[in-house]
Amino acid sequence: MDILSRTPFIRLEHGSGGALSRELVEELIYPILKSDTYTELNDAACISAKGDLLYTTDTYVIDPPFFPGGDIGKLAVFGTCNDLAVSGGKPDFLSVGLVLEEGFPLDQLKKILRSASSAAGENGVSILTGDTKVVPQGKGGGIFINTSGIGERRFPGDLSVSRITPGDRIIVSGPVGSHGITVLAAREHLSVGNRLESDCAFLFPLCESLYPLGKGLRFMRDATRGGLSAILNEIVSQAPFGIEAEEVNIPVLDPVRSVSDILGLNPLDVANEGVFVAVVAPDAANSAIEKLSRFETGKRAAVIGRVIEDHAGKVVLGTEIGGTRILDFPRGLLLPRIC
Amino acid sequence: MDILSRTPFIRLEHGSGGALSRELVEELIYPILKSDTYTELNDAACISAKGDLLYTTDTYVIDPPFFPGGDIGKLAVFGTCNDLAVSGGKPDFLSVGLVLEEGFPLDQLKKILRSASSAAGENGVSILTGDTKVVPQGKGGGIFINTSGIGERRFPGDLSVSRITPGDRIIVSGPVGSHGITVLAAREHLSVGNRLESDCAFLFPLCESLYPLGKGLRFMRDATRGGLSAILNEIVSQAPFGIEAEEVNIPVLDPVRSVSDILGLNPLDVANEGVFVAVVAPDAANSAIEKLSRFETGKRAAVIGRVIEDHAGKVVLGTEIGGTRILDFPRGLLLPRIC
Repeated sequence: MDILSRTPFIRLEHGSGGALSRELVEELIYPILKSDTYTELNDAACISAKGDLLYTTDTYVIDPPFFPGGDIGKLAVFGTCNDLAVSGGKPDFLSVGLVLEEGFPLDQLKKILRSASSAAGENGVSILTGDTKVVPQGKGGGIFINTSGIGERRFPGDLSVSRITPGDRIIVSGPVGSHGITVLAAREHLSVGNRLESDCAFLFPLCESLYPLGKGLRFMRDATRGGLSAILNEIVSQAPFGIEAEEVNIPVLDPVRSVSDILGLNPLDVANEGVFVAVVAPDAANSAIEKLSRFETGKRAAVIGRVIEDHAGKVVLGTEIGGTRILDFPRGLLLPRIC
Repeated sequence: MDILSRTPFIRLEHGSGGALSRELVEELIYPILKSDTYTELNDAACISAKGDLLYTTDTYVIDPPFFPGGDIGKLAVFGTCNDLAVSGGKPDFLSVGLVLEEGFPLDQLKKILRSASSAAGENGVSILTGDTKVVPQGKGGGIFINTSGIGERRFPGDLSVSRITPGDRIIVSGPVGSHGITVLAAREHLSVGNRLESDCAFLFPLCESLYPLGKGLRFMRDATRGGLSAILNEIVSQAPFGIEAEEVNIPVLDPVRSVSDILGLNPLDVANEGVFVAVVAPDAANSAIEKLSRFETGKRAAVIGRVIEDHAGKVVLGTEIGGTRILDFPRGLLLPRIC
């Protein structure tokens, strides 16, 4: 009799460190996550390192854990890998920390772990080490997943805001708002058919294609929580320059736009999980768009604006109806558990 | 006006990626955690690596977050560092992932982060990267902290169970049960005065003192969830040998023993956060005890048993009253959120 039929739901004892904890890890979790590198259930895994590594972490608390285009397992792998990729690193190794709420269905856990394992395996990323905790009912949110990630530095510089100068072009790698709007629609059970899908994607190939731009590549950041609005504002917040963007150039898929209207949200303000912003030198912009367009995920990549000397600290948006407005950090926006 | 007086409790907007998220990170979290190495709020931090690294992760969900002898911040730093230390590595770098529940007091968050920052700083460990998520009230447990850790391999072998052979001695580095019993007493508001204190400690110096034993050092593991009972059983569970231990030799502090009796718990079954088990060659045992005893935390280190050829897969405990019993994995033990 397998573990799913014996205990179909997470119990507190699964977290006690005793026999049931061991059973959960050895019979369900480890067989799915184990790999050539994660070969033993030790306290720590070994990495043979050379050169510069990049290191990052993110916790995923998304609700619901399954949504059109992905699930929390895939998201937890891709999200952390994307943080490495936009920082100039090739995602190599991940740790996975689970916080499970008492009552969470083991078959869902199994699906999520399989999804995480495939998402990593298909992209040459190894899950190296893990941990599982259980919290009582009412003290958790079903499943939370922390992943930390280690990557080998591939881009030889520090892709920080300090490289940006007026005249630089702002690029988005794809249509914005799809992830956030899809998750909200799924959470609210909006009947929008299957027209919406999260953009959840592994961005390293796209980012890597831009590394050869060298000095022409100034900065990259994936546009997660707070969406495009937050990233553009982060870029200018401490800077002696501003950003000028044209709303009409910002790609947004039609169904995302229409559901955003229904929900009263701006697609520029919501989280993406497969879209990044790149700032490039003026003479690198065409080349960057051409490189990104070779990827399915990057087909709609577009130059949406440029860095300007005036309006320091501000993002000025040319609106579709011909006016301009200041695009601020999203404020008072209650989109909990979007990633 | 500082952030604590403006918003004394965590609000959902602190997790939205917008203005309030940024405020929380820039005004409260980052100033406390930042270090020489964590110098910028980028998506990933850089490590210059050489040679073998060890990599681990752990999530801390302890309730209550403050307890005699420590708090969740210190625990999250020491716990993950200890996993590296018992695996033969010097803890160097940490990531910190926070999951905060709506309503969690910001002054407590500040105390916890300061504690984590000191725990790391005092021991030469750098917090390199972090992440903060907020979940709605009733979907979290106040504060959860994930830390992942990277350490430089200092012990030149793989301290795995496969190195163990019959005749080897079993050592515990200090009195067992203090952490688990202290946390339970604090949670249940037992009035045991200040006689109890968690053993929460940074174990690298003790572990490092044993690395020179070389081949004589077979295996180390910190005795966290499931306590000494779980570790001893993990050692033998797949092995062609057994373990024989003497209850009378296992150090337990008097107040821990008496509160355990009140609670109906066995101190051997509950979590420690500053105690590890080492398995050493017979001729290395005295030297190991001598080395450990030089440390305050290791003063009560003791040989508690040995590896035997018979009783394969079992831990046989010689009891204080002269009999023997099988010491099994703790079963049915409901000690949620003990670490």
